[in-house]
Amino acid sequence: MQDKINVLLTISYLGTNYAGWQVQKNKKTIQGELERVFSKIFNEKIEIIGSGRTDAGVHAKSAKANALLPLCFVKKHFSNNGKLDFSKLINSINQLLPDDIKILKIKKVGLNFNARFGAKQKTYSYKIKCGGILLPFDSFNTVFINQKLDIEKMQQASKYLIGEHDFTSFCSAKTEIENKVRTIFDITIKQNKNIITFEITGNGFLYNMVRIIVGTLVDVGSGKLKPEEIKNILNSKNREKAGKTLPAKGLTLKNVKY
Amino acid sequence: MQDKINVLLTISYLGTNYAGWQVQKNKKTIQGELERVFSKIFNEKIEIIGSGRTDAGVHAKSAKANALLPLCFVKKHFSNNGKLDFSKLINSINQLLPDDIKILKIKKVGLNFNARFGAKQKTYSYKIKCGGILLPFDSFNTVFINQKLDIEKMQQASKYLIGEHDFTSFCSAKTEIENKVRTIFDITIKQNKNIITFEITGNGFLYNMVRIIVGTLVDVGSGKLKPEEIKNILNSKNREKAGKTLPAKGLTLKNVKY
Repeated sequence: MQDKINVLLTISYLGTNYAGWQVQKNKKTIQGELERVFSKIFNEKIEIIGSGRTDAGVHAKSAKANALLPLCFVKKHFSNNGKLDFSKLINSINQLLPDDIKILKIKKVGLNFNARFGAKQKTYSYKIKCGGILLPFDSFNTVFINQKLDIEKMQQASKYLIGEHDFTSFCSAKTEIENKVRTIFDITIKQNKNIITFEITGNGFLYNMVRIIVGTLVDVGSGKLKPEEIKNILNSKNREKAGKTLPAKGLTLKNVKY
Repeated sequence: MQDKINVLLTISYLGTNYAGWQVQKNKKTIQGELERVFSKIFNEKIEIIGSGRTDAGVHAKSAKANALLPLCFVKKHFSNNGKLDFSKLINSINQLLPDDIKILKIKKVGLNFNARFGAKQKTYSYKIKCGGILLPFDSFNTVFINQKLDIEKMQQASKYLIGEHDFTSFCSAKTEIENKVRTIFDITIKQNKNIITFEITGNGFLYNMVRIIVGTLVDVGSGKLKPEEIKNILNSKNREKAGKTLPAKGLTLKNVKY
């Protein structure tokens, strides 16, 4: 087998025009665009292993993935005075990628590193404009809710979600994963004028989990639920007890740590 | 004739998904979307008179337009204790408009006010990222040029454009307008990290004029032209002497004054 080099990629993208991360037949996806460009550059099929899937319409500021690249080819075309020069590789890739997907960093990692199984911590943000007018320049990653939301009550409610829990109530019923226990390390909720930003950090997230958590916190903020009811919702292990799944466009994968 | 009320509209939009401002058959345009929504609300054909046309892909933070609305209908549906309540009208319109077009303000003006002929001053901005990586989150209104640009030289060059000139050299040859004399009041060029923002204020602009001016200033910034050559380009009254027409997506109509 040809010698390989394993690289960790930091990727930013707008999900607006894509059917999500994962390759799908006849659909434009983030992974699909990356694999197309990498395979073109290296003249062989390159697989891009993401830290996880994001749904159609979800964005990323700093998503992570890894790829095994042919070492000889990298040394020949992307080195400077005998040393690997990843800035040259980043330029070549970004020139071929569309405007809404860009590689921000490339770093050499061990051959056993796997971006999916190695992920220790992920942070997602969710943006809501409550009241006023959602400006077109903000609309690509912000959702409009025409209602005042009580930040303090949402903050109180969020405390019940911190720690290790079975998040069945906060997971799409469509999921096939059996183990629904996850750990949430932190939830922050900040308001800047009428825009509220939720930031949720955990060891991993179930299908639609962040969008359902924020939907449920919005029900607390609007007065439909009391903060302490979050506890019962968790315990019920019943998706129907939690709030709505909010739209994808408000969600951004902010960071992944290894 | 039915009594009318004339209103000045302040409008923000992303031009990305539109074939420009002006109504065109079988194409999505900003004016087309606005006329569709206004006509639906008032149950009669409403004409939206813009301060001018913007091309396909050009954005606006604060475009202006006026519209003659049926006074009885406005009084009946959009008033509060006998006083006109435009916030109610703004809400109704914005609910029907797409996310990328929103009405920010509505103000009553005299029946003779015309947003096109009354415009005294317009300000456009143009954004360029020079070098580094153009982040997907910035890419909707910023153009990437992989070259260092000399800000001071571009500022020197811009001085030759201030004042009243025949801007034939800086106008698309496709235009039908005969009088190509316009006045530029101010040009500012600012850099924040790798993003350069050009702001140009004038009494009016010819077809593609801002995009050609910035394209020519970029040629000065890159060293292809000397600042003082701008004077000869102006005097030549020849479109071929000036720089390239830069892409539409970097251009935003910032303000219109009356």
